[in-house]
This record gives sequence, structure tokens and C-alpha cells, in this order.
Amino acid sequence: MRTVDLIRRKRDGEELSSEEISFLIDNYTSGAIPDYQMAAFLMATYGSSMKDQEVDSLTERMVASGGVIDLSGVPGVKVDKHSTGGVGDKTSLIAAPLAAAAGAIVPMISGRALGHTGGTLDKLESIPGFRTSLTVDEFREQLRMYGLAFMGQSAEVAPADGKLYALRDATATIESLPLIASSIMSKKIAEGIDSLVLDVKVGSGAFVTKQLEARRLAQLMVGIGRRADKRVQALITDMSQPLGYAVGNALEVMEVSQTLQNAGPTDLTRLSLELAARMIFLGRITMTLDDARELAQRKLLDGSGYKKFKEVIQAQGGNAQVLDRFDMLPNATGVREITSPRNGYVSAIDAFSIGMASSMIGAGRDTKDDTVDPAVGVILEVKTGQKVDAGAVLCRLYYTKEDRLEESAEMVEDAFRISTVQPEERELILEVVG
Amino acid sequence: MRTVDLIRRKRDGEELSSEEISFLIDNYTSGAIPDYQMAAFLMATYGSSMKDQEVDSLTERMVASGGVIDLSGVPGVKVDKHSTGGVGDKTSLIAAPLAAAAGAIVPMISGRALGHTGGTLDKLESIPGFRTSLTVDEFREQLRMYGLAFMGQSAEVAPADGKLYALRDATATIESLPLIASSIMSKKIAEGIDSLVLDVKVGSGAFVTKQLEARRLAQLMVGIGRRADKRVQALITDMSQPLGYAVGNALEVMEVSQTLQNAGPTDLTRLSLELAARMIFLGRITMTLDDARELAQRKLLDGSGYKKFKEVIQAQGGNAQVLDRFDMLPNATGVREITSPRNGYVSAIDAFSIGMASSMIGAGRDTKDDTVDPAVGVILEVKTGQKVDAGAVLCRLYYTKEDRLEESAEMVEDAFRISTVQPEERELILEVVG
Repeated sequence: MRTVDLIRRKRDGEELSSEEISFLIDNYTSGAIPDYQMAAFLMATYGSSMKDQEVDSLTERMVASGGVIDLSGVPGVKVDKHSTGGVGDKTSLIAAPLAAAAGAIVPMISGRALGHTGGTLDKLESIPGFRTSLTVDEFREQLRMYGLAFMGQSAEVAPADGKLYALRDATATIESLPLIASSIMSKKIAEGIDSLVLDVKVGSGAFVTKQLEARRLAQLMVGIGRRADKRVQALITDMSQPLGYAVGNALEVMEVSQTLQNAGPTDLTRLSLELAARMIFLGRITMTLDDARELAQRKLLDGSGYKKFKEVIQAQGGNAQVLDRFDMLPNATGVREITSPRNGYVSAIDAFSIGMASSMIGAGRDTKDDTVDPAVGVILEVKTGQKVDAGAVLCRLYYTKEDRLEESAEMVEDAFRISTVQPEERELILEVVG
Repeated sequence: MRTVDLIRRKRDGEELSSEEISFLIDNYTSGAIPDYQMAAFLMATYGSSMKDQEVDSLTERMVASGGVIDLSGVPGVKVDKHSTGGVGDKTSLIAAPLAAAAGAIVPMISGRALGHTGGTLDKLESIPGFRTSLTVDEFREQLRMYGLAFMGQSAEVAPADGKLYALRDATATIESLPLIASSIMSKKIAEGIDSLVLDVKVGSGAFVTKQLEARRLAQLMVGIGRRADKRVQALITDMSQPLGYAVGNALEVMEVSQTLQNAGPTDLTRLSLELAARMIFLGRITMTLDDARELAQRKLLDGSGYKKFKEVIQAQGGNAQVLDRFDMLPNATGVREITSPRNGYVSAIDAFSIGMASSMIGAGRDTKDDTVDPAVGVILEVKTGQKVDAGAVLCRLYYTKEDRLEESAEMVEDAFRISTVQPEERELILEVVG
């Protein structure tokens, strides 16, 4: 078997066998296949795509490149939730405590902010003392005790994916659906879960901007999961405007606290409840999805989700008091108001621009090695569809340094479209796959 | 300017500016852009192709990556001939002496056999003593004396092309028309020529198998040449069966000798004369192409092409006697006859298979580092369209070692199609571009 022949065949749109995919991934991981051949293969895959069987093989070999976390000692069905990434998307911090409060076992392994998107780990680390680098033993023990633990991905999980991801990032081959799907699913499968709820974001603030593409991605991931004997469902949800009002790490933790106390934004509450319900259902706590929805709702209203989140923060070394006393969270030193230039309706709040603008003042990262400023970000004062008067505050930009502040403020300003006609309401949950 | 953005834009089918192409090629040559990013760019180019302006920029930067051979001290219009590679294609060794005998100045810089195709340098080196590694001074001096000199490409000519070619070879991106065109033209332009006759082969034994593709390649190269102020014409010629009867280095030199004595195969003689005529015309020896054709014909009939080739062999250290005494050339030790399984017409002699089979027993190279056996190869006894009886000899396989002999013989046998219906005659010269 010659690598160049496999590249040629993929280039020409042919389907590769399991053995051929294994040859490529195993030899790439070991270093026997050089980066430049894999780069050509990735670009050929970008152009030619992959059949389901190829995506399964690719996922399977990436899982096999590292260890699988053994959660068999923890009783119960293990259910995780994963979002493809968005702006203001703090649903993991709400849905996971609700599901755990309902009795689900939630081993939540999350990522960091990159580009315009936020990351669950960065949000949690804005809580003073919170420790995301658990050992696997600590992770297991906490799951047993609380039914919920948060940690970052260890380098031993799917190392082939880590190596491939870095190469894709440098070669403009991130945006290939089979590569995205196998990358996400290989990590999730290696984390020893039984069930998975996916939130596939679509819109300007997401990796995919077309619903058709989001559906194909959701179908790919659900298919991979099912064929690997995992129960998987995917929601396709709107990411044309930020979710909730807060964008930025500590700012989002504050909004999480409000939402878990049933005082959060409507869109965020609704989506978090639906995600929690599906986690509860796939975690086999209830027999029907409707029962799960009721249970999630109850866990919100009776405050047990909120209590669960506090327990887990405490368990991971964080100061849970911050959920009641926001002044104990990192706070920005400056604030800039963005106002409406005219009377009208907010017809769009471009999520990508809001995400980039926040990232630019320190809420996110340009490259993996950048550090994050937990205090900064954007708080929207309005959402799409609302009526505003000229001069009304559209949002506030919270900053600690003046670096790139003007650029960021301009970008935020440009993110808003104010028009004379009231826009049609957009669905938040667009589709369910699986 | 970020490399990954240029890769993405080419991936998405966008046109890159001259500055952007320069950035890529200059930084790749210097080592600042790694192989893996260039590999992704090449595969993206394979998929998206390039506009004329991009191909021109690419060619220009590859020329600029090294030195240009200065032939200004040699009086006269310098005209070279280049074939895109075929099986049994020894026209350079016939057309160049004819053109030089007619007064053209022919600085012929050639390549080596690779895969199923032969190489002019390897054919010349089957002549005992022949030296292809001339210095540029020797090359110039010999051009001044004889109007013809043969040499290999030096590493200083278009080094960016050399680096890119090796990467393309390993990444299944050889077969991209803009990459082929710029690779060929950058080397030719860097060789200090004024005019160029291209022989674009089409058919199973060529790099392109469809006439439409060959036309596009010819148009690309003619365009690049013209915009670089070179007079360029391209013939598109049939390479579905081998050219002439001989395939293999010393075997082809024997056929060259016969052809230069006007006792060669019809197809080979005809194409060599047409190529020589166009070299004479583009070399400004005659005012019209018809005059050039007459002159080429005369130089064949009066033996002055033959004499010129002998002079040049002598001048480059070779023993010119071999052209009259074939026993002084390397000779094979074994011969295997391939016979017809039935009565009928030869409807096809697959050039690719004949080329691969010859290469397999040593006439060619799998990889650049292999050595070539000058003695071995195939001599056809028939050509497409001929009537044969069952048991008649179709060709003879000349070998010196038994390694892979059976495999090679089977491949040769499979190359022949014998059918009951006489096939339609195929045109040899299909089109002229430029």
C-alpha cells in the first residue's frame, strides 16, 4: 500500500477501505507518514468528502490511537453533551447540572475558546479556585459522588485527532464535514460515554452557516455514534445572534447563575432545558422524552440544578459563593456603551462579529497559546426583533485594557442591523436529528 | 498575508494575485512555508485550477528562484523542443540533429526516464562514452561549434520547480494542468531559449489521456511562453501506441540511426520531420513553415542530419561508430517472443503497458534513484491496424535479468488487442496549437 496512491484515490473521489484508512491514520500517528502527505490527503478529503464507512473507520482509528477512559466502575448510564461551538453558548453549565440533579451521570469533557467561539473550560476557570485539570481517578470519584464532573481533554485521548487537528488548522482543511464529525466523535467515544446530546450550531457565529450543512454534520455524527453503539441525538440550533445576553467568561457565569435560578434569558433557558431533557432521556432516567422535559423543568424550578452546580464548583476547588456575589468574580475596569443610530427594529446581531470583538479584547484566543482575560466581554441590552429608539443602548463592552478597544467597539457596532421593518421571528431549535 | 488564508482562497476557487503567488513560491523556496502547507495548496490547486495570470506568476517566480542560462553570446535564434513524455518517443534525437543541420541553434536540455516514460538523457547515455553533464561553458561552446548540444537540467535552473515537483510526486498532485504547464515552461524559460516546439502527447502512454485536456495543456504552455516573449508552437500527437517500433534506451538509439538514414518507421519519421520543420521555422531559418518542411526533408535525405548527430556524439565524448555498428551498443542477453493468440487485426497496442513492462525489466525507473539497464526493452514487430496470423510474432522482449520477466511478458501480452474487424486509422498529429 502506497500513501500517494491512497491520496490519488481520495482525490479522484473513490471510497477507501477500512484497511486503507487504518494504514493512513496509524502511520501518520506513528510519524511514518509525513505531514505533507497527510495535508494533501486532508485537502483531497475536503474536496471529495467521505462515505459513512470511511468516517467510521477514521473515527475508530483516532479512538484507537490513545486510551479510552474507563467509566465502567461508575454505576449508571453516562451521558455527555457537546456543542459545535458558538457565541454566548453557556448551555453546558446549565443543562449538565439540571441533568445531574435529575439523576443522570454526566462526565463532561470540554474545550477552550478559539477564534470567535467561547469554551466551557475558560468559563469555569473564571470562578476563583476552580480546577479543570482533574486526574481520571478524581474525575471518576466525583462522578460517583455528584453525578457531574467537568474536565479538559487529556493528551492521551485520541492523540491522532490532536495531531490531525493542528495540521488541519494550518492547511485550511478544518471545514470538512467528515473531518469535523470524526474529530468530535473520536474524542467523545474515547471518553467512555454511553449517550451523547449534540448541539449543532448554525448561523454566522457557528462553524457551519447553512442549515443543510448542519443537518449533514448532525447526521454524520449521529451515524458514527450509533454504529459505535452509543445513543446519540442532535439538535440543530440557531447561532445567528449570540445565545442569551452575556458573551465573555465571568459574564457568562453570572448569566448561568441567573438562569439556574429561573431568572435567565428566554432563549438560553429554553435551549438549556431541552438539552437537559434529552440528556435525562438518553441517560435512561425517564422512559419518555416528555417525562424528561417535565423533570428538567422541575429541577430548574425547585433550585436543585442551581444547588448541584454549587456542589460541583465546591468539589472542584472553586468558590461557589460567586454565584450569589458577582463582585467576587473577575470584573472589568472599563465599560463602553454602544447605542442605536436610529429608531427601528433590531433585525440582526451578527454573532460572529460579537464573538470576534469579545475575543479581540481578551475574552478569547487567536491561537491556542494566548491567555484569556476572564473579566471582559459584551452584554447585550437587546435581542433580535426588539424595537429600539435612537440613542438607546444596544450593548455594553466590558474591558480591562485599551488594546484593540476601538477596533472591537467598531466591530460590535457593525454587528447590529437596525431596520424599519420588524424582522420575522427565527426559530431557536431548528431541527432534531436522531 | 497568511499562508493558510491563501490555501483557503485557492481551495474555494478564488484567483490569487501575483503578489500572493510570489509570497507562496518565494517563501516555499526559502523554507519559510513548510511542505505541509504547500502540499495542501497544491491539492487545492489540483481541485480549483488556476487562471492564466496565476500560471504566469507561478512560472515567473519559479524561473526567478534560480539562474537563467545566458546564451546571448551564441549567435542565432535558440530553439528547443520538449515532449510531455511518451513511450518509444525518440524524436528529440532525430528532430534536433535535422534542425541543427538546417542551421538552427538547438540548446537541448532533457530529462530522464520515470515510470512508464523514457528519457532522452538515458537514451544518449546508452552510447558508450556519451557525457550529458556538461558545464554551461561547454554547453555554450558546443552550441557555437555545432548548433546542437544535449545536457541534463542543472540544479540551479528553477530550483523552486525541483522542490515543488518532488512534493507533487509524493502528494498525488502531478496531474494538475497549471502545475504541469508552469513546471515545464519555467525550466524552458530558464534555459535561455527564444523559441520552443512542444510535443503534447495524448493517449494511454501519455500523462494526459484526453484530447481536450491535451489541448488545454498546450494552450496553457503556449500562452505562458508568448506572454514571456517566446515563440512557441505545440503539436498534440497520438500516444495510444508506442512511437516507432523500439522501446528501451540502446534499442531506441538503433532506431534513431535507421531513421536518420531514412530507413526508419513511417510514424516516427513523419513526426520527427514535422517537429524539425517547426524548430527550423521558429528558429527563423526559413520564412515559411512549408520552406522549413522542405529543408528538414532535404537534411534527412542528404544524410546531413545523420552526420550532425555523429558529430555531436563525438563532441560529447561518445563513440559515434555505434550508429553503424549496433553490436558496439549495450546488447541484451535474452529474448522472449510474444505471439498472437489468433488471426485478426492488431486493434490496439497499449503504450502505457509497453512502457511499464520495459521499465519493469530495467529500461526505466520506479523512483529517481533507480539505475537504468541500457540494453533492455521491447521491439514491436507490428503496429496498430496490421493483419496478423495466429502464432505470428507481435513483439520481442529483450532482457538481461530474469527478475520480473514473467510479469513484464504478461503485461506486454495484455497490451495487444487482436480483433476480427480492422480498426480505423488514427491520426498521428492531431492538432496544432499556437
